[in-house]
Amino acid sequence: MNQSSALTYLEEHQDRFQAELIELLRIPSISHDPAYKEDMDKAAGWLADKLRSMGMDNVEILPTSGHSVVYGEWLNGDTSAPTVLIYGHYDVQSAEPLEDWKSQPFEPEIRNDNLYARGASDMKGQTLAAVNAVEAIVKSETLPINIKFLIEGEEEIGSKHLNEFLIANREKLACDFSLNTDAGGMPDADTPSICYSLRGGAGFLLEIFGPSQDIHSGGYGGVIQNPINVLSKLIGDMHDEHGHVTLPGFYDKVRKLDEEERAELARLPFDEESLLKHSGAPALWGEPEYIPAERIGARPTMDVVKFEAGQLKSAIPAKATAWLSFRLVLDQDPAEVHGQLRQYLTTHAPPTVKWNLDFLGGNPAVITNRKSSEVLAMKDALQTVFGKPPIFQRVGGGIGAVLMFKQTLGIDSVLTGFSLDDNIHGPNEKLHLPTWKKGMVALIQFFHNLVDK
Amino acid sequence: MNQSSALTYLEEHQDRFQAELIELLRIPSISHDPAYKEDMDKAAGWLADKLRSMGMDNVEILPTSGHSVVYGEWLNGDTSAPTVLIYGHYDVQSAEPLEDWKSQPFEPEIRNDNLYARGASDMKGQTLAAVNAVEAIVKSETLPINIKFLIEGEEEIGSKHLNEFLIANREKLACDFSLNTDAGGMPDADTPSICYSLRGGAGFLLEIFGPSQDIHSGGYGGVIQNPINVLSKLIGDMHDEHGHVTLPGFYDKVRKLDEEERAELARLPFDEESLLKHSGAPALWGEPEYIPAERIGARPTMDVVKFEAGQLKSAIPAKATAWLSFRLVLDQDPAEVHGQLRQYLTTHAPPTVKWNLDFLGGNPAVITNRKSSEVLAMKDALQTVFGKPPIFQRVGGGIGAVLMFKQTLGIDSVLTGFSLDDNIHGPNEKLHLPTWKKGMVALIQFFHNLVDK
Repeated sequence: MNQSSALTYLEEHQDRFQAELIELLRIPSISHDPAYKEDMDKAAGWLADKLRSMGMDNVEILPTSGHSVVYGEWLNGDTSAPTVLIYGHYDVQSAEPLEDWKSQPFEPEIRNDNLYARGASDMKGQTLAAVNAVEAIVKSETLPINIKFLIEGEEEIGSKHLNEFLIANREKLACDFSLNTDAGGMPDADTPSICYSLRGGAGFLLEIFGPSQDIHSGGYGGVIQNPINVLSKLIGDMHDEHGHVTLPGFYDKVRKLDEEERAELARLPFDEESLLKHSGAPALWGEPEYIPAERIGARPTMDVVKFEAGQLKSAIPAKATAWLSFRLVLDQDPAEVHGQLRQYLTTHAPPTVKWNLDFLGGNPAVITNRKSSEVLAMKDALQTVFGKPPIFQRVGGGIGAVLMFKQTLGIDSVLTGFSLDDNIHGPNEKLHLPTWKKGMVALIQFFHNLVDK
Repeated sequence: MNQSSALTYLEEHQDRFQAELIELLRIPSISHDPAYKEDMDKAAGWLADKLRSMGMDNVEILPTSGHSVVYGEWLNGDTSAPTVLIYGHYDVQSAEPLEDWKSQPFEPEIRNDNLYARGASDMKGQTLAAVNAVEAIVKSETLPINIKFLIEGEEEIGSKHLNEFLIANREKLACDFSLNTDAGGMPDADTPSICYSLRGGAGFLLEIFGPSQDIHSGGYGGVIQNPINVLSKLIGDMHDEHGHVTLPGFYDKVRKLDEEERAELARLPFDEESLLKHSGAPALWGEPEYIPAERIGARPTMDVVKFEAGQLKSAIPAKATAWLSFRLVLDQDPAEVHGQLRQYLTTHAPPTVKWNLDFLGGNPAVITNRKSSEVLAMKDALQTVFGKPPIFQRVGGGIGAVLMFKQTLGIDSVLTGFSLDDNIHGPNEKLHLPTWKKGMVALIQFFHNLVDK
């Protein structure tokens, strides 16, 4: 089968695809803030219109208990051809701190081949890459496979209602596997990647209560302990001097890497220089007995994502609050980590304060089969288009959908993506447009490989 | 000399005095927030009008580089009579968190003999106690002494421009000593107090910089250290397990209490039960080898008053910030503490982050002569009115004016006040009205004692 007509179509419609992406990026679809509910609906509506206009069938905006899911399908492929569930999400993180953006986060701007906007890379761009690849084939030839689109609106808030949606729509979503372009992380524009491992996570809210209200630090300093000081100490002592998490039993269930995998990971381009350049940090950090690629992909972590306490006045505050985010690996269980954290606090929190710990949710890590026919189809497609084989990597983040698809729908995900160091979740998020286009070519190749094999 | 006519006047005008206090409390004169500049001027104007209306001479609102000083004088006393510089301040702390107030902070409300409002106790109430005592004498008899009022607008922001004002107005302010009713802290409504020692302080802004911008905690967790984790560790390690500050040399210059003073302090009613009741904390804390009154009055401390970092998203933030407030005692030098903190950070901050430390200002502790004639006059006045001698206490807070008056004008301050556990700087600040009135009676007695002796 020949995909030259789809590639011609892609070429001819590239300007429109780019204009459409900019349209979608203008919608501030921030899922965590109720103030943007209308924009969330607008983004879902935009995507449904897009799917309809390119000829998808049964396009629907399906409600969940939270933000809606956009669904569409094209089931005219050969009955022997696989059915692919293409995953995407239309929600984005908030854009704070706004003052650090060079251009406005929801007023996309192109500078040096890069399109700057919140969601450009994570993942409105990645979502439309898959959507456009399907459009190019459908509009120019015969799509050789069957497609179902599931584009959710809650990825950035933990895909809170996705699993109940999957349970309620199991039949509608029946398929062979999922394609997920949300697991990007190409080390550079010439090197494609496939992800086979995602870390899990567990989130907690930790509150330390001291005096019943803010009290004068002159009048009480020295006799009443400061909740900020206490929370700082508790957090500070959660790591030892070598970057290990000190919670009792935290590493007991961590699956060890075998030598073959360690050797493979050692070949990945996650070298110190590149990590320093991309992060801007003065030096790397972490467990010295593991290389950076292992620390990111195969070792658990604890980061405080927010610490909030006190005011600019001479007072010992009544309360100090921190939000803790653990990244977990196989075979850690978020509920057990919750227990370990609770145990740590019971042992270490002083009697001079009270504390409260809320478990905000968690999910285990997931690993997919690197030798399945669909992963090999992706590997070949990437090699064809980029001229060299993809690296196989463990990604440090998690994608709730991948786990839920596995647990609820019983399917694996082919995990790739065409993001570079795009500063997702941070200011000046960007998408490298030439790589985005190359990604669409690779996806067209991938869809063909699925039946050519 | 007999002060019965002043007391009669006080009695007859008590309702008006209370109404006037409520008027002044309605003005949100928050000095640290430029948004309240107009209210600051309004409060100064209100006080100038009050001083004029009660017959003070040369009443002026004198500009400084910051908020103005209200000045007024009554120099018709006998030439042999002392001249007293009465200190007060008309600015208040911000009222946040507003949701913790039972009534609005700038809509004074009386409940159970207590007047609730920001500034009721600290120190619009205390300021007007002295002003009203002078009015009562001036309007009903012959004031036996000379008076100068200096009411500043920057006490809550460290009396930033007071010293340059004192330097520029040394002659105008020439006097024998100062009366300062901002050093309250009566342990209960029956027990008056005189303060003879104030802690000093030093404030710092500490910033920890990690990645050049917020980065994804999945993609970088484990290789890039989190500035919140680092700042927490640095703060946590600034105390040992017994509540001692660990900065190198921090206690080297701390003046030791002699046995006589320890015995006196041991008699003060700063017992565990009362401190727990007033603070609402679950347990006391601090250096076990010192009793609470010593820890508050004679031992230095380090409190973080604010910690701000991160957001509710999965990111390692670029920066974490804390505001540190040290309380210092004799003979510690704020500049030396600055050096110690810098030394600690140089030694303890890891190479994975950069840091910045700003010294926000500081002042040494101050001790006044407990045996001066004016302190004895106050002691006798309090004993006469309250029926028992005042306790002599070391106060944990600092009052910049006391130090500046000593250093720039060369005068001591008589330090008293009529605040109870009034939750100054916190929500639901209050003033106990019967104690306020008793305080005015005591001040009338004090002014007479100054010449009767």
